[in-house]
Formats: sequence, C-alpha cells, structure tokens
Amino acid sequence: MKIIVADLEGVFLPEIWINVALKTGIEELKLTTRQISDYDVLMTKRLSILKENKLNIEDIREVISTLEPLDGARQILDWIRAKSQIIILSDTFEEFVKPLMAKLGFPTLFCHNLTIDKNGAINGYNLRIDNQKTRAVKALKSLNYQVMAFGDSYNDIGMIQEAHQGFFFCPPSCVVAEFPDIPVTQNYDELKVRIGAFLEC
Amino acid sequence: MKIIVADLEGVFLPEIWINVALKTGIEELKLTTRQISDYDVLMTKRLSILKENKLNIEDIREVISTLEPLDGARQILDWIRAKSQIIILSDTFEEFVKPLMAKLGFPTLFCHNLTIDKNGAINGYNLRIDNQKTRAVKALKSLNYQVMAFGDSYNDIGMIQEAHQGFFFCPPSCVVAEFPDIPVTQNYDELKVRIGAFLEC
Repeated sequence: MKIIVADLEGVFLPEIWINVALKTGIEELKLTTRQISDYDVLMTKRLSILKENKLNIEDIREVISTLEPLDGARQILDWIRAKSQIIILSDTFEEFVKPLMAKLGFPTLFCHNLTIDKNGAINGYNLRIDNQKTRAVKALKSLNYQVMAFGDSYNDIGMIQEAHQGFFFCPPSCVVAEFPDIPVTQNYDELKVRIGAFLEC
Repeated sequence: MKIIVADLEGVFLPEIWINVALKTGIEELKLTTRQISDYDVLMTKRLSILKENKLNIEDIREVISTLEPLDGARQILDWIRAKSQIIILSDTFEEFVKPLMAKLGFPTLFCHNLTIDKNGAINGYNLRIDNQKTRAVKALKSLNYQVMAFGDSYNDIGMIQEAHQGFFFCPPSCVVAEFPDIPVTQNYDELKVRIGAFLEC
C-alpha cells in the first residue's frame, strides 16, 4: 500500500518566517532552512531576534492569521486525500501553524512545539525528535507502506532519500545544484502526474 | 507531543459487514471481530460467503454508499483535529471505505486492501502487516509521541495496551468482561472529556 509524505512551507503554505519578517520589517527573520541548513542554529537565532524585538506569541499569531495557503494548495491536498493518504512532515511549531492547517482542511501534521511562558514570551522550542522527517518515513516503511516524499529544502533531503520515491517541489536553485540527482517538480499539475503514476504502479 | 489513534467501525462508522448482512439478507455476514477474534478466520469466511452468493465489489460498494457515519462522528473528529492529530487505525479495506472517509472529512487512515479481478470479484484480502494497530502505536512512540488509543473490539486490545493511554469506546459486554482493567467510554461527550484531559496533562 502507498502513502505520501510532504513538507508544508514552500509546498502548501508560504514561508511563515519570511512573512513575519515582511510584516514586522525585521530583515533577519527572512532566513530559512533554504539558507541555513542547521535548524538549531536557525531557530536559536530566530527566537533571540524575537526577544530583542519584544515580539511574543500573540504578535506572531497575528501575522500568521493574515496568511493564506498557496494558490491551489487546498485543492491539491483534497485531490490527494481522496485518492490516498498523506501526512505532512514539517519542522514548524503547532502553536504557529494551527490557523493555517484549518485552511488546508486539517491534513495530519507531524511537527514540533514551543515553550511559551504565561506572558506569551517564546522561551524555547522543542524538537519532538531529531531528523523527524527521515524517521517518519522509516517508521511508515516499517508498517509496510510504499512511501513517496517531496519538499523544497535542506531539511527534506533525508526523507526524500529515505522514501521509495522522492523529489523536490519548487526548490531554490542552490538546493538543486547541491543535489542534482533528486528529480524536481515545479507546480501542482506536475505533482498530480507524479502522484498519479506512483499510485497506479 | 500528543497524538491520538482510533478504531473506525463502531467508533465513527457503523459496522460495515453488519450493514452488508442486513441489506443482502445474508445472516452469516453479521459476524465481526466482536464475535470472532481471529481476523484471518473471519475474513476468509466473509469472502467465501460473498463468492457463494455471487456478490462482487460493486454490490458491496452499492450497500456501503448508502451508509452514513454515526451521529456526531464528523463533529467529534473535527473537534479532535482542531486540537490535535488523529490517525484512524482500521482493519477495513480501502476499496470499501473510501466513500465513508469522504463523509468524515478524510482523516488519515491506515488500513488494508483487497485483491479484485477485472470482473469485480473479490479474490482475496491483503493485510498490509500483521498487528498493524499495535505496530502503528509503537512506530508513533518511536517518533516521540505520547499516544492515546481507543476502539471497541478484540483487534483494538493491542493498540490500547501499547498506548500511553488506552480505553474502550462503546465495547460489547463480552469484550469488557474479558478485559476488565481497560477503562470504558460510552459516548462522544465522555470521549471529549478524556481527550481534553490527555491533551492538557
């Protein structure tokens, strides 16, 4: 039997931190896993920037609540869910992403969470487990699933390589250059073709 | 982080085989895992009954397409999905259950599939893996999830016992008598209380 796993930001949702940067005017928050591949370095930097700028969870939620899924994201997810099973594997945090998951029809999401104090200050982040995306693919394989995986960033490489079929979706050119053997899909129409072929074979 | 796994038939959907029995008038198809705990014995019997009565996949689908989820099932699932993550672990078959999953808003489902020939005859069933429910809970624990599990039947015992918190939902009295140490929940209101407590602790 088949199952699909996919990244969230850059695939179905806009990059949350880039949008927070745009709305707050804090240029440094634009960095993502596309530029800094070490997630701990990236997140520690983001949280210290929030603290310096006295931004708490409510400020961030306010920004996030104004965002919408990418054009066609809900439709392609509904299409996939009517044909197969999909689990979203994201290094985002449940406290940030919930309003956007509602807009996507609540597909199942494996992610992480934040430590927030009673004043709403974000004091830390809790990775549920290291390499959660790769491990999730391994776990699904152990349950006798044939797994297809796609994403756009450095933190998707592991799951893409671990899956039976894996490819990039709209990756930045630096990632493609570094992993030339991984196929690239550029839009939802191409994605439908790939998924259709995977489910039929 | 927390995740919930749950059985499908008897929890969110009516028992599919019982309804097929009622609509076709074939009394023997009323047997479920509630009465026969060995799933292979049960399924082999069901398929041979279908063959004897010349019922193919389209006949079964016709019956299933007339069924509705249990009263309040969609609402409780939506409530759970807005608060946490849920994966349905069912020993049903994807070919049967798809129209009913649509009526539930397509929560993620781990199940099995059938071997169907070009004339629509159901020639066999393929268990994706033995003890899939218990193994799925183990896999989720290996991904550092705290797992809550509930179901109504013999084939749910393993996952209920493997999970950090497990209980019966509307079980038949024979199952309760055999496993007196497993807590029992009788309706969706009680289920909400249990899930609320699990997510808050």
